[in-house]
Amino acid sequence: MAAEMAEQPRRLAALLSRRQDVADLVRDLVPDRLAGTVLVARGSSDHAATYGRYLFEMATRRPVASASPSVLTLYGTEVDFTGYVVVAASQSGRTPEIVDVLGHARRRGGRTIAVTNEADSPLAGVADAVVHLDAGLERAVPATKTVTAQLAAFAMLAQGLGDVGLDDEAAEAIPTTVAALLGDTDPPDSVAAWLAPATRLAVVARGVLYAAAAETALKIEETTALFASSFSAADLRHGPIAVASTGIPVLALVHHGPARADVTDLVADLRRRGADLCVAGDGDGSELPWPASTPETLAPIPAVVRAQQLAYALALRRGVDPDAPAGLTKVTIT
Amino acid sequence: MAAEMAEQPRRLAALLSRRQDVADLVRDLVPDRLAGTVLVARGSSDHAATYGRYLFEMATRRPVASASPSVLTLYGTEVDFTGYVVVAASQSGRTPEIVDVLGHARRRGGRTIAVTNEADSPLAGVADAVVHLDAGLERAVPATKTVTAQLAAFAMLAQGLGDVGLDDEAAEAIPTTVAALLGDTDPPDSVAAWLAPATRLAVVARGVLYAAAAETALKIEETTALFASSFSAADLRHGPIAVASTGIPVLALVHHGPARADVTDLVADLRRRGADLCVAGDGDGSELPWPASTPETLAPIPAVVRAQQLAYALALRRGVDPDAPAGLTKVTIT
Repeated sequence: MAAEMAEQPRRLAALLSRRQDVADLVRDLVPDRLAGTVLVARGSSDHAATYGRYLFEMATRRPVASASPSVLTLYGTEVDFTGYVVVAASQSGRTPEIVDVLGHARRRGGRTIAVTNEADSPLAGVADAVVHLDAGLERAVPATKTVTAQLAAFAMLAQGLGDVGLDDEAAEAIPTTVAALLGDTDPPDSVAAWLAPATRLAVVARGVLYAAAAETALKIEETTALFASSFSAADLRHGPIAVASTGIPVLALVHHGPARADVTDLVADLRRRGADLCVAGDGDGSELPWPASTPETLAPIPAVVRAQQLAYALALRRGVDPDAPAGLTKVTIT
Repeated sequence: MAAEMAEQPRRLAALLSRRQDVADLVRDLVPDRLAGTVLVARGSSDHAATYGRYLFEMATRRPVASASPSVLTLYGTEVDFTGYVVVAASQSGRTPEIVDVLGHARRRGGRTIAVTNEADSPLAGVADAVVHLDAGLERAVPATKTVTAQLAAFAMLAQGLGDVGLDDEAAEAIPTTVAALLGDTDPPDSVAAWLAPATRLAVVARGVLYAAAAETALKIEETTALFASSFSAADLRHGPIAVASTGIPVLALVHHGPARADVTDLVADLRRRGADLCVAGDGDGSELPWPASTPETLAPIPAVVRAQQLAYALALRRGVDPDAPAGLTKVTIT
């Protein structure tokens, strides 16, 4: 896992250098009257797709749907995808229901794109166009370099349809930022020390960073068997705030921009209720910092790198092998 | 909470008796070339919308999107909803961002429907058409009768666009089924006894019942402050199965039909791993039973009633006031 995390700067640099090709690929596919975009994914890939959902809605100004694969694969409903760009994300490109849905979408009028780490996979075979992540084989069970590659791929695809902040300066800064974070291991170590005795964790964010909160919860859960859940700040404020005031540690992700105030208000409220809190983000008071120079739309990439470091450090502290946590298999990894 | 749960048979009967009007309402609104459906909701309403997502996709055979309200309300992105039916669900009809998104959708070409318990609410005011749940004032903080009313409303709307199983026989059976479940309190009491010492819970389902799993987790969490999460059987099989084998109790929801095998296979796998399991559903071996006569597409309604009973019984066993759990307020209830 550590070796694969360390590859990220060069893998991201290579992938991002192909951003013009990816922008051209999606512009060639998009129909004259775009009905909308459909995203198809599961597991970690689904968190990258959640990120893609925000960026595609901003870029296309048309609704973005997430496919429920079971509607086709279990219930046999033949959906008409005419007018849609359909993007499926699967690292292995071999998750049967993802392949089935993308193949069906193409046969039923959709313009289909596969985002995958396996250029020869069945998923690539059924798509009109392929974004090959080319992140190299991932051996550790918890996915790291393939996840940040997927996030970058969704940003590149969205940037092909509208400005989501991935200009040349921002694209070229990402590998440097990730390398600097990977070299800075004290903050994740000390947050891991805070979490070491915990049995549960709530991860909270809002807006574009929500996808990073979901991936943070999954990565920590996969790697350390700590029971972690993600919440939108808007939802935690309603029901589950009861949970947060009963001793469950809360990790809040924040980045400057329109979503910040909602999270910082929630953090202040939780502090008043005596919650056990830690803030990760670009601002003052962040215990797990990343740079403020990253545009908010790209902040999930450094946030997910911090989550990997935290999961890794926490696994070691809890005596778990981060490369092969109990009960996890790579078989159905997407 | 108990009094409001007990009202459900008559509230559902009254609502379902208006099913022809609701079918006409949605048929009048749907554009000639439907691009898709967009659902807008938060909290418990979001779980009803998850149910609606399956039913609308089956009924319309076009993609179904869930709006990310923050794309408009935080980032100011003006999305074009031409060709879409947009359904917003909010009990109070007063959640500002839900009202903002539906009003925006109508101004930008969407055919808009409000599903709400308040016919005079701002949400009803911005919609082309209103499905008034008319479930009466809900005083207890955990929503019960308004949630089952929302589920019924989504089934009625979907049935207006295509057959999702809500024929006259099925519609007329729902209030009777719910009344019978409410009179049968031993099973939820004994499942509550099983859960009483737990600090965490995983609720798992697949397909249409997934929405009920999400609502079950939220209802138990809201009512008892037990930390509960929901999983699709397809996702639990991948990463978080590690968690399920480390002592966290698992509640699996099953109903006969195409989604059943995935859940029963997972249950068998979890049993082999020594997981602490309980099955709720319509079949043999269910410890929290509901009738097999309910069509699978409508099974979330009895499943959610069982979840209410379980949450209520568990709150009493844990010494929590189910009408006013600590830390929860009704203010932002949707």
